[in-house]
Amino acid sequence: MQEIKIDISKTLNFVSENDINELKTKVFAFQNILQSKTGAGNDFLGWLDLPSSTSKDDLSRINKTAQQLSSIADYVVIVGIGGSYLGARAVIDALSDTFCNLKTVRKNPIILYAGQNISEDYTFELLDFLKDKSFAVVVISKSGTTTEPAIAFRLLKELLEKNYSRDEAKKRIIAITDASKGALRTLSNREGYETYIIPDDVGGRFSVLTPVGLLPIVIAGIDIEKLIEGATWMENRLKSENYDDNPAALYAAIRNILYKEERKIEILVNYHPKLHSIAEWWKQLYGESEGKSFKGIFPAAVDFTTDLHSMGQWIQEGERTIFETVLSVEKPKYSVEIPFDKDNLDQLNFLAGKRIDEVNKKAELGTQIAHIDGAVPNIRISIPELNEFYLGQLIYFFEKACGISGYMLGVNPFDQPGVEAYKKNMFALLGKP
Amino acid sequence: MQEIKIDISKTLNFVSENDINELKTKVFAFQNILQSKTGAGNDFLGWLDLPSSTSKDDLSRINKTAQQLSSIADYVVIVGIGGSYLGARAVIDALSDTFCNLKTVRKNPIILYAGQNISEDYTFELLDFLKDKSFAVVVISKSGTTTEPAIAFRLLKELLEKNYSRDEAKKRIIAITDASKGALRTLSNREGYETYIIPDDVGGRFSVLTPVGLLPIVIAGIDIEKLIEGATWMENRLKSENYDDNPAALYAAIRNILYKEERKIEILVNYHPKLHSIAEWWKQLYGESEGKSFKGIFPAAVDFTTDLHSMGQWIQEGERTIFETVLSVEKPKYSVEIPFDKDNLDQLNFLAGKRIDEVNKKAELGTQIAHIDGAVPNIRISIPELNEFYLGQLIYFFEKACGISGYMLGVNPFDQPGVEAYKKNMFALLGKP
Repeated sequence: MQEIKIDISKTLNFVSENDINELKTKVFAFQNILQSKTGAGNDFLGWLDLPSSTSKDDLSRINKTAQQLSSIADYVVIVGIGGSYLGARAVIDALSDTFCNLKTVRKNPIILYAGQNISEDYTFELLDFLKDKSFAVVVISKSGTTTEPAIAFRLLKELLEKNYSRDEAKKRIIAITDASKGALRTLSNREGYETYIIPDDVGGRFSVLTPVGLLPIVIAGIDIEKLIEGATWMENRLKSENYDDNPAALYAAIRNILYKEERKIEILVNYHPKLHSIAEWWKQLYGESEGKSFKGIFPAAVDFTTDLHSMGQWIQEGERTIFETVLSVEKPKYSVEIPFDKDNLDQLNFLAGKRIDEVNKKAELGTQIAHIDGAVPNIRISIPELNEFYLGQLIYFFEKACGISGYMLGVNPFDQPGVEAYKKNMFALLGKP
Repeated sequence: MQEIKIDISKTLNFVSENDINELKTKVFAFQNILQSKTGAGNDFLGWLDLPSSTSKDDLSRINKTAQQLSSIADYVVIVGIGGSYLGARAVIDALSDTFCNLKTVRKNPIILYAGQNISEDYTFELLDFLKDKSFAVVVISKSGTTTEPAIAFRLLKELLEKNYSRDEAKKRIIAITDASKGALRTLSNREGYETYIIPDDVGGRFSVLTPVGLLPIVIAGIDIEKLIEGATWMENRLKSENYDDNPAALYAAIRNILYKEERKIEILVNYHPKLHSIAEWWKQLYGESEGKSFKGIFPAAVDFTTDLHSMGQWIQEGERTIFETVLSVEKPKYSVEIPFDKDNLDQLNFLAGKRIDEVNKKAELGTQIAHIDGAVPNIRISIPELNEFYLGQLIYFFEKACGISGYMLGVNPFDQPGVEAYKKNMFALLGKP
């Protein structure tokens, strides 16, 4: 069985192996606190055994809902923000054809997003686009009153009810919300929407493996059984109390050591453009879990080699306060060889017959060497292939490591007290009763 | 005449007005060095008077090429990386309908990008998508040998020559390259491609107002005369030696003071999702200009309110080493009111009848107050409307400020010595002769 692997050997010029080994007792003590649910935020640890406790029946119900929606709608609008948006989008972008939305012959509806901003122009253009289309809505909100998705849902619901009979409109709305309370639950019960439950003990940024992520993902034509299978595999793997068998513990340890060594910014690097949104999901996971009490690594992300031509200069020669964590996909899905050209004006014939990925891998290695020369520690996470199974592994790996890492930092990784500050001001300014 | 404005009043809890005034002589001295072309990197200052020296004839030739391409191709692939990619994309994303590529009735070709990565899967999916489509290529490379665009161009040229006669293929290729030397110039001359010139004295990250940016932008249906008009307006404006009339000088001053006060990360914030790619362009502009000699502000970016639900926690309560520069569009293009709902389960009726942008603006103000309370200095750049004229202003504003700011930091803002390091390693690993 192949698996996500972590290689920290290219950090060892910057931290001592001794430090890593000395930290071992502490890391696994925190892992035990996490697993025994005895630490801070322990009422938000439902995600820990989510993969293994998700049944085939759970998944087949989600699959059935997706099939129903797909059979009646050409477009499905996912309404949600933060954890109710980034996880689904991360997996959908990672596993969909880059140009799938431009294709006229399709197996799955086109996924659109709403309620992830309060832009009047975005909302206008979305409503204008959808006004003569066959669409459905998946609305995701624990409370049903979060400003962005609530505004978007009011407008989309209005459009559906204008375009269809009230009964038909109801069939085109699925709600993912609280089991028993809140505005969206009340509305769903009254209107008879099909609903899925956001568990009480799973915070937004850890919710991608609940229906919050799974329903949008399966609507996009992605195999959620394989995703859960990969996550379950990693759930079991990460019970190990040995660095060699527990990449999450090792990742948590090394990034905390680097942070203490004044490495204040972690740059998540990918060499595969489909991983772009995985980095956006990761930023919330780590930024919101650790950025508190005036501490925490600042999470940033780049897409290489694209951004070697923008942020590459800074990374090579700017302040030495960064480290890189590279996501590398070992095996591409497709094969393209670089063709021979008899004139060779572009001097690329030395690459003729090679696969593009070989160049990409050498760019990665060349960059690693250059950045280490430039005093940037490098952590490498290898992903055997970009598919559901390994993405499930990757998601659970990052979640578990985040819990351990937050405890090591000395914060509660499962709250987000600072998120309310702007909302309070905004509601006051808007004169909310 | 309305204009881009800068408001630094919300930094004054963190820096003294005195410091800003004392720096005035220095800032304008550096502006003079820049304008008189007597400083470091002075052979790369062609961008300084580019707007005012671009003639109607230049623009009408570009417009004509775009019309020709649009009349024969449904898709135009822009082949370029770094400065030959980010500027065009920034303006195109800012001024296009969000869902334009999904529309079947179109005035302009769909813009696709290639050569901005070395992903085998991306390349495969692009070629597979294009194989039965009517497409054209704009290839942008000074040398013609930059690895990423050179590989992509070989493959796209091969596909064009397979699908069309050689003569027809030639009509579907436009090259933007050096005036006289390099692989792409040689090829273009031999094949008879229509070409545009990348000036010798304009570096990649300052090239958006040359044909490098202008041709792709106009193909996307955007008015480049208005863009140049706005840039020219700002070119004249920024000759002022007074902070009040020179927002670029003020921006350069304040960010250098903040950096000295240990504000190591600048977060470029937008409240309009169409500005996302402007931030990517800005990251290259500032990161590549200033990230050298082990110094420079680390440029990061967020889309609000989207990312208030991911990075908001870190910004509110993480390390106090950041400052924010907010891009705020004063007036939306469209109008959408929040509807009344008789049941009001989502408790949004207090917003009924208000425009969505009013909520967005209150979110912005509420966030500004919250972040200042949380000790994050806030610079605000207001953009009257998101159109060609103000975007032209914004581009020139950021470019000019970048030149001054780099000189203040004590670096040559117009070189990028660190970008070669990975390439050297990569070519060695690939066995380049």
